[in-house]
Amino acid sequence: MRIITGLQPSGKLHVGNYFGAMEPAVRMQESGESFYFLADYHAMSTVHDANALRENCSNLATDFLAVGLDPEKCVFFRQSAVPEVNELAWILSTVCPMGLLERCHSYKDKIAKGFSPSNALFTYPVLMAADILMYDSDLVPVGKDQKQHLEVTRDLAGKMNEQFGEGTCKLPDALIAESTAIVPGLDGQKMSKSYNNTLPIFGEEKAVRKLIMRIPTDSTPVEDPKPTEGSVILQLYKLFASAQGYEDMVRGFQNGGCGYGDFKKRLFDAYWEYFRPARERRAELEANQDYVRRTLEEGARKARETASVVLDRVRRAVGLA
Amino acid sequence: MRIITGLQPSGKLHVGNYFGAMEPAVRMQESGESFYFLADYHAMSTVHDANALRENCSNLATDFLAVGLDPEKCVFFRQSAVPEVNELAWILSTVCPMGLLERCHSYKDKIAKGFSPSNALFTYPVLMAADILMYDSDLVPVGKDQKQHLEVTRDLAGKMNEQFGEGTCKLPDALIAESTAIVPGLDGQKMSKSYNNTLPIFGEEKAVRKLIMRIPTDSTPVEDPKPTEGSVILQLYKLFASAQGYEDMVRGFQNGGCGYGDFKKRLFDAYWEYFRPARERRAELEANQDYVRRTLEEGARKARETASVVLDRVRRAVGLA
Repeated sequence: MRIITGLQPSGKLHVGNYFGAMEPAVRMQESGESFYFLADYHAMSTVHDANALRENCSNLATDFLAVGLDPEKCVFFRQSAVPEVNELAWILSTVCPMGLLERCHSYKDKIAKGFSPSNALFTYPVLMAADILMYDSDLVPVGKDQKQHLEVTRDLAGKMNEQFGEGTCKLPDALIAESTAIVPGLDGQKMSKSYNNTLPIFGEEKAVRKLIMRIPTDSTPVEDPKPTEGSVILQLYKLFASAQGYEDMVRGFQNGGCGYGDFKKRLFDAYWEYFRPARERRAELEANQDYVRRTLEEGARKARETASVVLDRVRRAVGLA
Repeated sequence: MRIITGLQPSGKLHVGNYFGAMEPAVRMQESGESFYFLADYHAMSTVHDANALRENCSNLATDFLAVGLDPEKCVFFRQSAVPEVNELAWILSTVCPMGLLERCHSYKDKIAKGFSPSNALFTYPVLMAADILMYDSDLVPVGKDQKQHLEVTRDLAGKMNEQFGEGTCKLPDALIAESTAIVPGLDGQKMSKSYNNTLPIFGEEKAVRKLIMRIPTDSTPVEDPKPTEGSVILQLYKLFASAQGYEDMVRGFQNGGCGYGDFKKRLFDAYWEYFRPARERRAELEANQDYVRRTLEEGARKARETASVVLDRVRRAVGLA
């Protein structure tokens, strides 16, 4: 059972990314042969800055290794280290009806958000299909927003098999994340870079403390009970604290006699403790970028090994070999 | 000065292809460092048959070597032997506005002709741009129908330089064929596979003789003068005969006393003599397909050498390396 996950290198990661994507991905490496790639080709469709792309990639690699991706258990590589994926994308594009891409929501959404309509944004689902089919993947964990793209992948695989013979491409299944942790931002909206309400995973101590101490609260006096419903402090605390610790804080809210400032301090401490092992691991990795680079190279070597088997099969099927 | 030409492997070549494309291409190899590639990726956008693709490719390679392409003077290779071109195509697609492709006539023309609208047909100009920019080409001989695609190539090169720094891509110039020989088909229309009126270059003797003997003529009696204006026999004969021979046949038409059958025999003989050296060379190559294969491999090796320098430069500029 091979599982594939692409990770977009698009800036500093926050707690929402962690619980929504990284933590489930790290858990996933126990369930089968997992392939993880840093989707730098995809990032290029919105990032046109060489240094930003390089920095985002090496940050994301370091972050993922810090939070527990284990190169002994999974194949971890940079997408562009297997450039053969672009050849498969061209092959798939020859059986890809324009209508299939024209119907994709995510392109329209991106344009609506103000991205300029480039061919890369439009063709994105074909490259994504190549990313998946390149490794004969069985399972692709996707959020609801990527469900349609996985259907495009399955469609293209089906068309390849129809035109060039059964078994040319392997049809993958989607693994739709049923319920990922809901992570509120510091202002109570969904945590998202575009809302500017994020808590970084690897922030600097003082800066993060400041962010947390500034979480807006109501003006309930210290001695009064505080509303637990919709409290950002409680919701975030729940992610970092033990069940017992969380219960204690809920009771603290209900009983009164303790101010928001104290709860925020406990939230900060829990956050800081929660990421301590990852933070320490990250500092080691930061000081040993050679290891990160070698890990990605070794991952790329393994990925290429699998990719070349699939690509040879496809090239023979279509007549390129 | 580097000149690049792509040749679509799309079936048996005819005399119209020869005078319109092959003969000028062979002449071109004297003018600079010429790169010729068999455009098999492009062919895939309309051919979904592995054996046909393989056969068309090896036929076209054999034909081109037979008519005089000299691997000592030029770089001759199969497009798919340098799959890196697909990576460059993806990079270019990230700076390619959808509008640029939507305005291309050739896509609309192909759809109008009944091709199903695939992403490959639509994206074709981006891959063509990659084919050209991959080799820092200076000059691209194109027919009028490809002029717009070359403008797309120049546009994309300009955008790359704007976004990622001057010198990232080299802007090529178009060399518009001013007047290529007009080759009439056997029925007097333009010679074209789609009109089913072609004279093959390497046809079997009896079959070609039959084709020529069946060229429709009017019913002027043998002894009368025959109209020279619009005569398919004369127009074709002019391509194969010496100036003197052509003059002689014109006078034969004007003087009368000779039937169309005789003129057709002289046309066949001239055709047969004209292609004799190429035909003999082709028979040798046919018997030595290993040589053809090795020639393409050696060409691919040279092409890759040039491509890797350009691709390294581009990858660094965009942040992939």
